[in-house]
Amino acid sequence: MSESAPIRLAVVGLGLIGGSLARALREAGMVSQIAGYDRDPEQMRLALELGVIDRIGLDAADAVRGADVAVIAVPVLATAAAIADCKLGLGPETILTDVGSTKQSVLDAVISVFGDIPPRFVAAHPIAGTEKSGVTHAQADLFRKHRLILTPHPAQDAQALAVVEALWAATGARVVKMDAKRHDAIFAATSHLPHLLAYSFVDMLDHLDGADEDIFPNAGGGFRDFTRIASSSPRMWHDILRANAGPVAELLRRQIDELNGLLRMIESGDWEAMRAVFERARAARERHLTRIE
Amino acid sequence: MSESAPIRLAVVGLGLIGGSLARALREAGMVSQIAGYDRDPEQMRLALELGVIDRIGLDAADAVRGADVAVIAVPVLATAAAIADCKLGLGPETILTDVGSTKQSVLDAVISVFGDIPPRFVAAHPIAGTEKSGVTHAQADLFRKHRLILTPHPAQDAQALAVVEALWAATGARVVKMDAKRHDAIFAATSHLPHLLAYSFVDMLDHLDGADEDIFPNAGGGFRDFTRIASSSPRMWHDILRANAGPVAELLRRQIDELNGLLRMIESGDWEAMRAVFERARAARERHLTRIE
Repeated sequence: MSESAPIRLAVVGLGLIGGSLARALREAGMVSQIAGYDRDPEQMRLALELGVIDRIGLDAADAVRGADVAVIAVPVLATAAAIADCKLGLGPETILTDVGSTKQSVLDAVISVFGDIPPRFVAAHPIAGTEKSGVTHAQADLFRKHRLILTPHPAQDAQALAVVEALWAATGARVVKMDAKRHDAIFAATSHLPHLLAYSFVDMLDHLDGADEDIFPNAGGGFRDFTRIASSSPRMWHDILRANAGPVAELLRRQIDELNGLLRMIESGDWEAMRAVFERARAARERHLTRIE
Repeated sequence: MSESAPIRLAVVGLGLIGGSLARALREAGMVSQIAGYDRDPEQMRLALELGVIDRIGLDAADAVRGADVAVIAVPVLATAAAIADCKLGLGPETILTDVGSTKQSVLDAVISVFGDIPPRFVAAHPIAGTEKSGVTHAQADLFRKHRLILTPHPAQDAQALAVVEALWAATGARVVKMDAKRHDAIFAATSHLPHLLAYSFVDMLDHLDGADEDIFPNAGGGFRDFTRIASSSPRMWHDILRANAGPVAELLRRQIDELNGLLRMIESGDWEAMRAVFERARAARERHLTRIE
């Protein structure tokens, strides 16, 4: 298979990300046909009906059989099971890749199935998504101008890496490479912890007297944006936080320390210190705002 | 003065809110002329140049002299000083009102100037704004379809209340009345605490190794929305949190407790309990989403 000829794609897990990747690659003319599989027959039926995929697999192994590239696009904790289900259908030349939000846990899942990391496995993470789930929300431009992280492993086959890089570049994503452990530490900070904070904040409010009567009804635009990620899939985020528990717990401890510091400033009336936190935070955000996708 | 004839308006504090109110009332044909004052000569000059106001006051008292309605639109902790500065210019019929994000502290500020709350003082809080500051961002439609809270006090003059209500209704806002203390408890929950959390989160990230190198540069859309309010004016939010310190501290303690609970779930591997928090939060947000402006 050459890097430029249309490929036969298989997508296992037909949710927002898997569906959007299928749509994007078809629109870019990168694929000759797309097979798909999902544990949920309804998502599979919808994916076929919406033209996201051309063929439904009888099972995961059947879906990936004959594919040049097989993409695992399931919640991260389902990665090992999904790969195991595909195993019998994967040919010696098939490139296997994923879209998981945590990368060390995915490498561990691959090892749990194969005993080691096959050279033709490529770990990938698109920095895109919305709080919406499901193949009906799939859109071809979801990845355009967003980052796509590849975390090459020691046994990595260079050609497999190049093929996956070319596919993502065709979706309009900006491809970046980094170490899997550093990836997990970075996204614990920029993505996993904020989700935890947003869920926790809304849950705390929901327990207050008058939550339904006059608290939530008086929420405004700031609240809406701050809590948008609390409408994300609980299943997906349960998986991500569990798969990246170590780095998340470390940052959550730091966040609690920082909040205890703010509480002491308020209790002791150290308003200048509180204001200094606000000034630093605003400056940091403004410094980076233009780089935030 | 009748409730329907065009009024002479004075705005003390020509920022985003004061400027937007002036623009909205002019567009609605509610005002015959608008005088303005700001401590910052540049904001005043801009307000005149942009047509937000018709006349600059020599000082705050001069700006409100002859006005039917004088609006104090300064950071909440500057309320007492701004009202004191206006005092000599206020006639016996002048309706005095404000736009502060905390209401008990504003009533206290009024008492500190007048000894009690004048019947013609009307406490108001528009639930609108953006993270942007200054009169150049003022827009006539800022309040449209947003809530406007009035917190009537025991000595409240009914006609003054009706005039202020009519002005806000003319901006397109939906006017709601509630008790000042309850207002402060509600907005501590829906607005003040989220600002504190957002500032604290960005500041915590800014202290991490690699913050500028690879952490902030890998922030995505979820981060952008979650932290949008951390770009708000530190001066304004310093004032609000200080003016509403009691209710905010109580909720911050609850939030820290809830986060410690989540940390224990992660440390002990009680993933079902963590997922239950996510499910409850998502359900609460979805239940109220249609009511969030």
